[in-house]
Amino acid sequence: MVQRVVPDVVVRRLTQYYYALRHCQERGVEVVSSQRLGEMLNVTAAQIRKDLSFFGGFGKQGIGYHVGSLLEHVQRILGLQQEWPVALVGLGNLGRALLQYPGFAQEGFQIVALFDTDPRKVGTTAGQLVIRDNNEIAQVLPAAGVRIAILALPPDEAQEVADRLIQAGVRALLNYAPITLKVPAGVWVRQMDPLLALQSMTYYLVRVTG
Amino acid sequence: MVQRVVPDVVVRRLTQYYYALRHCQERGVEVVSSQRLGEMLNVTAAQIRKDLSFFGGFGKQGIGYHVGSLLEHVQRILGLQQEWPVALVGLGNLGRALLQYPGFAQEGFQIVALFDTDPRKVGTTAGQLVIRDNNEIAQVLPAAGVRIAILALPPDEAQEVADRLIQAGVRALLNYAPITLKVPAGVWVRQMDPLLALQSMTYYLVRVTG
Repeated sequence: MVQRVVPDVVVRRLTQYYYALRHCQERGVEVVSSQRLGEMLNVTAAQIRKDLSFFGGFGKQGIGYHVGSLLEHVQRILGLQQEWPVALVGLGNLGRALLQYPGFAQEGFQIVALFDTDPRKVGTTAGQLVIRDNNEIAQVLPAAGVRIAILALPPDEAQEVADRLIQAGVRALLNYAPITLKVPAGVWVRQMDPLLALQSMTYYLVRVTG
Repeated sequence: MVQRVVPDVVVRRLTQYYYALRHCQERGVEVVSSQRLGEMLNVTAAQIRKDLSFFGGFGKQGIGYHVGSLLEHVQRILGLQQEWPVALVGLGNLGRALLQYPGFAQEGFQIVALFDTDPRKVGTTAGQLVIRDNNEIAQVLPAAGVRIAILALPPDEAQEVADRLIQAGVRALLNYAPITLKVPAGVWVRQMDPLLALQSMTYYLVRVTG
């Protein structure tokens, strides 16, 4: 058991290694070098070796990584060998688009509970699930063992809902509302903010022509 | 003019500095220390000083940064002092949710062109714009000066549409399709992938209890 704290940026890259290794496996590749992995992910071979060293030594000098075995390790490190029940809060256009996205279930993230505050929506079904009122979060989630929630909400509702979800045992929030959520230690948030993404690309656009 | 290449991670953090500085300005704060900025953004004061040093010296030793002046600089560095016309491809639930999101226009990103391939959608209007066929991308975008596009598409259509957009002059792609787009040098992509985000949080969930 390696005891060093793994930087979050390494954890994020690990998900990319996971997909690159799956890509190799699907193509029947049995061994991959850090050079080749690096090319696939646009990072240096040295970075790959350093990242993976946080979790122990996997590769063999001059040979490379055994794809199947490294994939299994990365999957276990990331906690992806199990199913994760997920709550979705907010059933507007965005929430409904997310509900239809087959990738979640394919990758082991099963949406098991839906919440909204709109009385016209509460009690109706979406994707074979009944939409419940946000007031029911505390009753529903602990029993379902839900620790991951997706927030597809307007910004003025997101913090209150996040607080409620955390009280009900949620520890990971995928936040589509364009606000920075305040959460206690031990709760993780990923911000899906299209504006920040756009604003970090215009930097390049003003520097190139053509 | 500082000539060093700025790492992409610094560019991304710059967008966060931008919002933190706006937050300060809205609250009437005139001077902010790198310590305080760091607390707001969860990075060290040293990191902030180092990041900003890429663009010249802004702060005064022992005094801090003048909020208004630094904000203006960061805005100009990021190319946010101008309006950016944007194309949106894919008018499913996700595309429609994005079209309704007021943040884009508020921040200077004006959606000016809509595309879809579905004959039931082409020719109809959404958000006061006529949805055009993907075939028209090459005719419409250069005339409108569009260099930014949002892809709200299924994964099997995304690469072909991206190629077409790039040929029509697009240089920045906000990609909601869960595939890694292949783009030439000088084109930037930001991936809005909820699965990668979820999979980078389960790492933490399997390591904590409660």
